[in-house]
Parts: sequence; structure tokens; C-alpha cells
Amino acid sequence: MVGGGDGAFIGAVHRIAARLDDCYEVVAGALSGNAERALRSGTALRLAPERCYTDFRAMAQAEAARADGIDAVAIVTPNHLHAPVATAFMEAGIHVICDKPLGISTAEGVALAALARDRNLVFALTHTYTGYPMVRHARELVASGAIGDVRLVHVEYAQDWMAEAAMQSDEFQRTNWHNDPAKAGPTGCTSDIGTHAFHLVGFVAGMQPSELLAELHAFTPNRTLDDHVQVMLRYPNGARGMLWSSQMATGCENALKLRVFGTKASLAFDQENPNELWLTPQGGCAQRLTRGRVVGAAAEHATRVPSGHPEGYLEAFAQLYRDAAARIHALKAGLPVPEETADLPTVDDGVAGMRFIDAVLASHRAGSRWTALER
Amino acid sequence: MVGGGDGAFIGAVHRIAARLDDCYEVVAGALSGNAERALRSGTALRLAPERCYTDFRAMAQAEAARADGIDAVAIVTPNHLHAPVATAFMEAGIHVICDKPLGISTAEGVALAALARDRNLVFALTHTYTGYPMVRHARELVASGAIGDVRLVHVEYAQDWMAEAAMQSDEFQRTNWHNDPAKAGPTGCTSDIGTHAFHLVGFVAGMQPSELLAELHAFTPNRTLDDHVQVMLRYPNGARGMLWSSQMATGCENALKLRVFGTKASLAFDQENPNELWLTPQGGCAQRLTRGRVVGAAAEHATRVPSGHPEGYLEAFAQLYRDAAARIHALKAGLPVPEETADLPTVDDGVAGMRFIDAVLASHRAGSRWTALER
Amino acid sequence: MVGGGDGAFIGAVHRIAARLDDCYEVVAGALSGNAERALRSGTALRLAPERCYTDFRAMAQAEAARADGIDAVAIVTPNHLHAPVATAFMEAGIHVICDKPLGISTAEGVALAALARDRNLVFALTHTYTGYPMVRHARELVASGAIGDVRLVHVEYAQDWMAEAAMQSDEFQRTNWHNDPAKAGPTGCTSDIGTHAFHLVGFVAGMQPSELLAELHAFTPNRTLDDHVQVMLRYPNGARGMLWSSQMATGCENALKLRVFGTKASLAFDQENPNELWLTPQGGCAQRLTRGRVVGAAAEHATRVPSGHPEGYLEAFAQLYRDAAARIHALKAGLPVPEETADLPTVDDGVAGMRFIDAVLASHRAGSRWTALER
Amino acid sequence: MVGGGDGAFIGAVHRIAARLDDCYEVVAGALSGNAERALRSGTALRLAPERCYTDFRAMAQAEAARADGIDAVAIVTPNHLHAPVATAFMEAGIHVICDKPLGISTAEGVALAALARDRNLVFALTHTYTGYPMVRHARELVASGAIGDVRLVHVEYAQDWMAEAAMQSDEFQRTNWHNDPAKAGPTGCTSDIGTHAFHLVGFVAGMQPSELLAELHAFTPNRTLDDHVQVMLRYPNGARGMLWSSQMATGCENALKLRVFGTKASLAFDQENPNELWLTPQGGCAQRLTRGRVVGAAAEHATRVPSGHPEGYLEAFAQLYRDAAARIHALKAGLPVPEETADLPTVDDGVAGMRFIDAVLASHRAGSRWTALER
Repeated sequence: MVGGGDGAFIGAVHRIAARLDDCYEVVAGALSGNAERALRSGTALRLAPERCYTDFRAMAQAEAARADGIDAVAIVTPNHLHAPVATAFMEAGIHVICDKPLGISTAEGVALAALARDRNLVFALTHTYTGYPMVRHARELVASGAIGDVRLVHVEYAQDWMAEAAMQSDEFQRTNWHNDPAKAGPTGCTSDIGTHAFHLVGFVAGMQPSELLAELHAFTPNRTLDDHVQVMLRYPNGARGMLWSSQMATGCENALKLRVFGTKASLAFDQENPNELWLTPQGGCAQRLTRGRVVGAAAEHATRVPSGHPEGYLEAFAQLYRDAAARIHALKAGLPVPEETADLPTVDDGVAGMRFIDAVLASHRAGSRWTALER
Repeated sequence: MVGGGDGAFIGAVHRIAARLDDCYEVVAGALSGNAERALRSGTALRLAPERCYTDFRAMAQAEAARADGIDAVAIVTPNHLHAPVATAFMEAGIHVICDKPLGISTAEGVALAALARDRNLVFALTHTYTGYPMVRHARELVASGAIGDVRLVHVEYAQDWMAEAAMQSDEFQRTNWHNDPAKAGPTGCTSDIGTHAFHLVGFVAGMQPSELLAELHAFTPNRTLDDHVQVMLRYPNGARGMLWSSQMATGCENALKLRVFGTKASLAFDQENPNELWLTPQGGCAQRLTRGRVVGAAAEHATRVPSGHPEGYLEAFAQLYRDAAARIHALKAGLPVPEETADLPTVDDGVAGMRFIDAVLASHRAGSRWTALER
Repeated sequence: MVGGGDGAFIGAVHRIAARLDDCYEVVAGALSGNAERALRSGTALRLAPERCYTDFRAMAQAEAARADGIDAVAIVTPNHLHAPVATAFMEAGIHVICDKPLGISTAEGVALAALARDRNLVFALTHTYTGYPMVRHARELVASGAIGDVRLVHVEYAQDWMAEAAMQSDEFQRTNWHNDPAKAGPTGCTSDIGTHAFHLVGFVAGMQPSELLAELHAFTPNRTLDDHVQVMLRYPNGARGMLWSSQMATGCENALKLRVFGTKASLAFDQENPNELWLTPQGGCAQRLTRGRVVGAAAEHATRVPSGHPEGYLEAFAQLYRDAAARIHALKAGLPVPEETADLPTVDDGVAGMRFIDAVLASHRAGSRWTALER
Repeated sequence: MVGGGDGAFIGAVHRIAARLDDCYEVVAGALSGNAERALRSGTALRLAPERCYTDFRAMAQAEAARADGIDAVAIVTPNHLHAPVATAFMEAGIHVICDKPLGISTAEGVALAALARDRNLVFALTHTYTGYPMVRHARELVASGAIGDVRLVHVEYAQDWMAEAAMQSDEFQRTNWHNDPAKAGPTGCTSDIGTHAFHLVGFVAGMQPSELLAELHAFTPNRTLDDHVQVMLRYPNGARGMLWSSQMATGCENALKLRVFGTKASLAFDQENPNELWLTPQGGCAQRLTRGRVVGAAAEHATRVPSGHPEGYLEAFAQLYRDAAARIHALKAGLPVPEETADLPTVDDGVAGMRFIDAVLASHRAGSRWTALER
């Protein structure tokens, strides 16, 4: 693991996710660039002292050289380090599990994708929400034609944490890396959570927009990057869509919600109630599909406990780790990519997310013009 | 009543609304332009035969001349007749209760507003959804500062009726007046339900956008007018917003939903569950405010039965009739407009709705440009 | 109307219900035993002074003697007057619409049923909640075999109004007729709302228990009658059930909820969300059936506005008035009882309710013994 | 681990729960009494072959003798083995984490409690649902007086799995250990899930009933034990309650629901939506308390991820393992029981559950008589 020293939220989540299905053991880390913190954090995780690194490049080389070296690295650093770290480990022949967004520019994303392809390495990108069984079931339903042709999509990802007084301070905004373009990339909210929303809607709807129109905004005084973004979408098949993402949506916790309207039926998913998915036929009555009761290979593959025993965010996260493990095992065994891991987000999804950021920014700067989205 | 002959949905609703609080008696009508249908419909309503008119101008004059002539006319015709009918009755000194939208052009709307002012007549516009106690409570909460400054609004009004096979036919689209610009006005879905959404958000948020950006769309083949519209909003205080309205939203019944995010708290209202309103403080937990349990003059004024005894659409509609009656009584008695009827939508709201339509159309035609909204 | 003078809640509700579908005009009343209040209340309703009675017997005779006398009387008095008033009007040949419970003893209920039969008069009992379209749809579903054989029922009716400080006072309990056995009958909460719950479950499940076991309780200090009752039920077909009713259920508004579990599927209805009904197949996923979207004669008969336009308590109440009007018209015309009014609760349902009260009381007094329920 | 060979549901759940917070490693097991299955199952878990036992007594002795022997044993066998297995390991000085119910008789439960006390060993009983943060918060709220004195409780635990055709067969009922009194104990549904409901209500309400009245029932043909139980409860402070538990509740997944009504407010919890808890003040509006947003030591102690990131059943289960680990560490270090582990269910809760079963059975056999509950 690179990043994720003591106190880091997402590092701890990655570790639980890795452990939950018993596919990984955490044995080495460059948990911090600070030597003392790196050692302290590693010791707390029971790492051997010689495997508590402070430099990720040193770690990549040392681990690659060990007989019992790591198979995969989890990257949980600020955005600007994703590409350098991933590059170092891939060059050392080590598989990558990387937090999103992929990086801070499309160019570095494209280079990572090329490197992963060249070295034939697994590069999993933790778009966590696609690990939910009911999200995978939604994708499967759409792909099966169960809702007809997709006509309309709505996705929103709303939080209110940045509206807290502490985060509204100039001090916080000046020092937090999420508001530093050099570390976060060219957008704020759009990169942080907008890319999750963008990935989710494409994942389920099975199609990508050809054009978008966007407005970025910062409600926070003296903020450099956006804390709010609204986007209109146009799809090649004539479908329309809206995407909204905000870290200033008073009263919202982690409100990622998706609706997909097809010609035959519509689907609705709310991340805060992830064990259910709503299916409503045209002109008809809604059905509340529940995990464990619906029949479908995708949902079953991502399910651990029976219906009525709620699974949550950590299980969704663990699913990505489990799928990545299955791919790594297959690669090691010289086998093809296991079909049931097809839902795992990869570096290519990361590149699509970077292109989304580019298009949003271009549209916004042009006064919310319709802007082509590169593929 | 003008319009609303047998079989007309909205005419029957207006009649129940008028009757529910016992403020009105239906005694005369030009229920249809067809003499036979006008008489048959009037007889079914127990109107005296001589008060079953076929011509609305004749009715206005005849009723104005009777000692027991009508006090007010309810206009439930297609849109293009709203202005001529309202004009005829106002010129005869008769108060008007008119279905929305106000008409088919801003110009006729402005003229109606001037006439109502000149003649000192009540002109109620049936933006039904503002008759709900919890909508009025929401408005009162915002006005009181309970949610702080409004930062963000989201309103959507989604239906799926036009996606039914029968309505997707060329035959229906060719013959239905909702798709005929001469009768419906320059937009379709936008006029039909978009204006409801636009009025609702302004009613509750207590502010009007200064600019908007819109995209109209028709999913229906061979349709002249839009069946879908999405709009971004900018407010003078820097607030942002989104409005979406569709008659092609698979699985939606009458899904008018409003969210208003302030600096202190947010509100959420869903027309399909109108006895509740959700209030969530920044960083806190949601409260489900219920009709009959919340304390507030506006909600109490619009409430008939105790908490837990659900009120619905007809009661909301009746509230507008009741408020209009109170104004008519006050005018007749030479009294000022009763303060508690301040929430009644009037011809001025109708003009604002027409200007919204104009701006949406202008933005759309300019490729979704940001367009100033005239006040 | 007998009872329902100014300030009386249920009288006003009956009047709106009567008016809503335009089947009745209120023309006479013994609105109060106090002459001054009777006249004042009648005048407010625009009754002719000579039809504002203070004595219900005088009213029955006078109205029967008038050429334009009333067709039906609405009885909205305290419970102990239901039987005497209904008897007086039935003996004068006038149809009855009576609030529940039927009276204060089974004996008087049986006599009322006999009188109604002998005189061939309509006797509607306002078990309001059976006027909801989705309740009628539930009954129709059960009768059609859609949920299989009923195996289990749960019904509860919980309110918290009596837990308010004002109602917990000795003063209130001493003076309120709901706590006076001479006026309310032998039980309190059981009669007030328990009978609603009992009727509802029988109405939907289409079967009556053969035995019950009950515990009455009063949480209120110095209260004579129960404010809380819990009952277990056994049915002839082996089904089991529970009924709970309380006026001390902190935080509950008017929480009448029903669940019926069959061998194939289960149904759930919540009076506070009356436009929906949940249907869940064995081992499957729940469907949210909505008024206006479900297909069925019973629901359609009781529906006024399209799906998504919520109907409420007053419409359910109005439905009973409308059904009673249809029966009265049929009787007057010498026609058979209209089939579509089969769902109207009558004096026979009232007698069943009185027998329920008897059995509850008998079981409670015997230390919660299983007690046969007479048919 | 004893029990939990390949294919066993609850064994896998225990293992994830043990691993999730990285407090345990699974190193030895008597996963099956069948030698081949024991070895195969152990190998799949990467146990050393010499630590794959077939006899639990041998395992207890061998592990106690090893320097690196296990600290604790997880018991996931059928009910009748809980006591013998727990006894063997406690006699070898090994801590116990045992699935519920505690056993098949109160006598063996009392003996286990005595043994745990004598040996000063941790004995955790996996009443999983008390591991949820919002359940612990509910308990804390009640204990703090936030809802006043408890007046009324309702708890239900409904499933429909036994109503599936496969489980309704004589074959299944004859062979499944849940229907064999020698292995399951004297009750079926009551032991399986009724004890969960009973424990939950006592855990939150902070009080135990003094009397109960019960009816057991089996809807399943040719079934020996109950598949359905309904119970009325009386508390020393005059509070009343109902408990219902069924494995034949068509359409229910794992519907464990609790309501506690106090004099000031009520609480409602639904296990299928475990990240929220509803708090409604007397006469007021409900608040939806959410995990991560409420402030309280008990909930925080049991929380891993921020609000809006749902936690589920596995996290609740893991919480019990984590609390047990903290106790074991404390005991080993000679420290007092950590205060923050006070919510961990123990052998004493298991004894209370056995006494509940006894009282239910006694009441039922006496024709549903009120029966004292021993403490």
C-alpha cells in the first residue's frame, strides 16, 4: 500500500476491503513520506520493519526483488501521485489497485493505460459503487434489454461536508490538497465525486455521451476549484441526461443516486440504500428488487449473505478487491480474464473519467457550450 | 364555468374543488362550443337550461345582466382560449379562476394582468400544487430564514403518460391540442407542466432566476412541440438551480419534486406524498414534518383534517378556490385583500410563467445559451 | 344531520364527504341539543331556520312529513345516541348514515339491524378506511385468490393524542365522553379505533376470527376505560392474527396499518399513505401498487383523479356517502342493491364490531383467556 | 472454529466477521465431524493439516497444549452441541464466541454461565443485531432518558424461508436439524429467531418482562416444532409489549423490527435499514437519525465508515468479534473489562433467552396463560 498512513480514511477502507474476502494480506507499505509516520503506521499494521518504506520507488524495486514480494499495490495517495506511483510499480511488474480519479491529466491517464496493456498487468480503479450487487444487476438488466432502449439518465452525487464551517474557512481551503490544482487536478468536486457519478451512469446505461454542457461553480469563498457542477448530456442514440454533483448540498450525506429511463421500464438506485433497486415498467407499478431475491449472475457473484441481511459500502469495496484478485490469479496461471470479473473498473474507465473532466472544463470555460466528449 | 363538458378531466376536478369547502355553487356554464353537448353536460350538473350557453361571450353578457348572475368564472378550456374568455368575463365585471398556463403568449398575459388590475378583479391561476399545506409551510420556512440563504434549487416534474403507445401514435399527436402550437402555445411539456415546476420553485424559494439555459427535446416521433425539457438556472444572489420536466419519463406518475438547499438547512417535497415535508439541517439528520403536526399559520390556513388523515390533490385545488372566494368576498365588502390569501397564484404568476416559456425557447434556439429571464 | 354543531370535528368531515361528489345537500339538522347552538350552527350552514331542530325525534317526524323532507340522516353524536337517533329516523322511513361504533351494546345493535331489514332502509356505517381505493383493491385481490389462502393477519391502529398532557389530566378524563361508559360504551380505545381495525382486517381478509384473546390496559391515570388493547386472533381456517390499538402510542398520528399474509403473497397497507398497497410474493420482491395504475373494478369505482394525484381521507369518506346515495337511489327506484356498492359497511358490520367488543372484554376479564367470538 | 465446514452459511459469516477488523486469524478448526470434510474445509481456509481436527474435545486439548494455541473458539454447530463444545474449550482455558441460542436447555445454560464465571473467561453470544451502531445508539438514548419511561414495546422478526415449497416438504422437515428437538431444543422458530427478538428488545429497552403469554403455532404440515410464535409481554413498571416471530411470513426477508414507545418519544429500528433509527417525540414529527450523523459514544464505537456509506450485517457481526477481542486482550493483560465493550452479549443473555423459551412453552401449553418469566 502506498499512502494510507495512520488517520487516513480511505487507506483504512482499502485495508478492510482487501481483508474481507481473505484474498490479500497487507505485508508492505510506503504509508507515508515521513519516515517516522511510515514506520509507526506500518507497525500498527504488523508490517515487518524492513517492509515499511518511505519512498514508493524504493518499495517497488525492493518488493519486486523479493521472493515473497507483493503481487499488487494499493494506491491511496492524493491524485497527483497516482500516476507516478502506478508507473513505478507497473514498471516493476506489480499489479495496481488505484483510488479514483485516475490522476490529474488525461495525458498521464493515457500513458498508464498503455503501460498496463504493454506489461499485461491488472489495473483496477476503485469506482467502489460498481461493486454493489444491485448496481451490477441494474447493468445486467439494461444490457439484457429489460428496460428497452435507454432514453434518459439522471445521476447525482451530493454531499454537504464542504459546507461545514470548518471547511468553509480560508485556512482549510488553502491547505487542503483537494483544493490545490497541483495535487487534485484541474477540478475539485468534479474530480472527487463527479467522476464516480459519471462512471456509474455509463456502467449501468452501457453507453457514453457524445456531447455535454456544463457549469462549474464554487459556493465556498476564496476557493480555487469547483465545489459544485451541473451537466447536461447527449448520447449518440438521442438519449438525454443530467449529472449533478455537489459538496455543498446541505443535508446530503453521500447521496449518489441514479435513474435510467428506458422505453420499456425505468431503474432507480440510491447508494444509501444499496440492497435495493427499483424497476418500474412504462405505465405500471414499481417493483423493489432486493439483493438476494433477484436472480442474476452479476448480482449473485457480488453477494455474500442472504437477502434481508444488508450489505454495505465495505462489501462493495471488497468486491473490487476480490475481482482484482481473481484477475491476478488468472494472469499468473496464464488463464484468460475470468468472465465474471468483467464489471471491474480499470484504467480505461479512468481515462474516460479524465476526458469527462476535460470536457466539463472546456464547456464551462466556453460559457456552458455543448462540447464533444472524446472517446 | 367555461369548458369542462362531460368527459373533461380538469373540469370535473375544478367542480369538486369549488364544492369541497362549500364556497361556490355551479349555476351556469359554456361547457362546450357544441350546443347539444353543452346542454347535456349542463343538465348533468343540474344547471338551468337557460344558463347552459354555447358561446362564452354570450354567457359573460347574460350572466352580468342577471341579478343572480355568477360572481366568478372558472376557465378550463385549451390554452388559446384562456385570454379571450378571461377578457370577456373581466370586461363584464366577473372574477376569473383560470387554469394554467395563463395563455399562449406573454403579450396576452400582460394584457390580462393589466385588465385585472384596471377592473380590480380577482384573477386566480390554478397552480394547484401551491395549495398544499406543506408547500405553503415550506414557503413560510424559507421566508422566515429557517433554512438560511437559498443556495441551490432542484425541481422536477416527470410523467410518463405520453410514452404510452396510444399517445406515441401520429394520429394522437396530430389531433391532440396539446401538440398544436395554435392551441397549446409555443411549447408543449414546458407549458403543460414545466410552468407548474417553475412556479413551485419560485413560490417556495421566494426568488426568481435572472438567467437560464435550456434544452427542449421531443422523444415522440413526428411531434411538433417538446415532450421534455431540461433547464439550468442562475439566481441574482448567486444561487444555482436545475429544472427538469418530462412527459416521457417511463414509470413516473405525477412526480413533481422540489428540493431547496439553504445555507442552514434543506427542504424536500414530493407531490405524491403531500402530507410531509423533509427538513434537514446542514450536517444533521432529516426531520419529516407532517401536516397537522407542524406549527405555522400558512399550513394551518390550508388544512381541513388532523394529522395522520391524509389530504390530497383535490383539497389542494379546493384551497385555491377557497382563497379566491375569500378575496372575492373582501372585494365585494370593500375590504383589503385578506392577508391569509397571500399565497394564491394570480395573473402575475401567469405572466412570469409565460416569460419563463419565452426564455426557455430563446435559449434552446440559441443552442442552449444562457439567456436573461425578463421580470 | 344529528350532532355536528360548530366546533365538532367529525360533523364537518361528514359534511365535506357528503358534498364532495355532489350527491347530497345538507338541508336540515339537529346539530345540538342546545337551542341557541343548534340555530347558530344551522345558520352557518345556511339551513332554513325552521329546519334547525333541537330534538332529533321532532326532526325525524317533521322531516318525514315534509314533501321536501330529507332522504337520509347523518348521525354524528356520541355513541350512546346512535341507536335512539337511528331508530327514530328509521321509524320515520328515513335512511341512515351513522358514525362508528354502532352503539354501546350488542343488543341495541341487533335491534337496529332488524329494524333496517324490516323497513328496507339503507344503514351505512362510516368505517371510513374501507372507502380507500387501495383497501378495496386489497379486498378484491384477496377474494380473487391472488395471495392464496390467508395464513396470518396483523392490524394495528395507533395514535398518541391521549398521551398529550392536556388529555392526561383528571379533568379531561372526567369530563370527556370518550371515557364515560354511559356515553362511550363498555370500552374506550377498543370502541373508538379498535373497531376500525377489526372491521378493516375482516373487510380485506374476507374472513372473521372464531376466537380471540385480549388484554385491555389504561396507561392514563384515573381513567375508567381502556386506552390500549392488544388482541390475538384465531380463524376457522387455522390462520392466526394480531390486533393492536392504542391512543397512547407516542409519536403515532393516525397509524392504521394492515398486513395480510397468504400462502402465495402478502399485502401491506398504511392508512397514512393510502394511494399505495404493497404486494409481495412468497420468496419474491415487493411491488408498490398505486391507485390509478392498478387495474380492478373495486379501485376504479372509488377513484376520482388519475394516478399520481393523491387522494386522501376525505375522498375515502366521500366514497361511503356516494355508495350510500347509490343504494338510496336504487331503493327509491325499486331496483336491486347496485353491485358496485357491495363494499359499503352497514349495520351488520356494526353488529360484528359490537360482538368484537364483547369478546375482548370477556377475554380480558377472564385473564386473557381464548374466547369464542359470536357471529 | 467448531462447525462451519464448507457450505455452512453461518460459519463463513463468522469468519468474515472475525477477519474484518483484523482482530483474529483462523488457525485451527474442527469444522466437521467427518474427517475428510474437516480436512478439505480446513485446507480451503489454509489451516495447517495438523490443526484440522475432527473431534472438538481433541482440538480443545491439543490447542491448549500448543504454545501458539488458539485464544478463542468460535462455535457454529447445531444448538445441541453449543454446551458440550463450549464446556470443553472453557475447561481448557479457551475463550468462547458462540452462536445463539445458547443451547437446548436452561440447565445447560446456567452451567455454562457458572463455568465462564469460575474460569474468568470471555463468553460472547452472537446476538448479531446488537452490533449495529444504531441499535446501540437506541439503547444509549433509552438509558439516557431521552424517550422518558418506556411504556410500550413492539418487536417482530419475520422471515418467509420456511414457506418455500422445498422447506414445506416432509422430507426437509424430517431431516433438517432445526426441526429436531434433540438438536434444536424444545422450540423451533422461537429458538432460531424469537430469541434474537427477545434479546434485542431487552437490550434497547433496558428492562425485562416479568410475565408473558404466548401462542406457538406450526403452519407447516407434519412439523414437530413451531414455525410461528406470538407473545404478549408485561413489564414490572407496567409497560406492555408484543413479540412476534415467524418463519412463515410470506414476503418477509429478514424483517427484524423494533419499536419502543416512551413517555417522551418513541424509537423505531428496522434491521433491513440498519443505518437509520427513527425518533419521534410525543405529538411531534419524526426524525431520521443516521449512523455517522448522530453523536454518541456507543454508536461511534461501533462505526467504521462515515455517514452515507452504509454499513451492514457483516459489520454488525464484526463488532461483536471486535468487542470480544478487546475483552480477551484486557483479561490477558489483567485489566478490567473495557467499558466500551459493555454492549457485548454474553452467556448471561443466553441464559435469559433460554428462560424466555421456557416461559413461552409453559404459557402455550397452559392455553396461553400469563406466565411468570424467571430471572
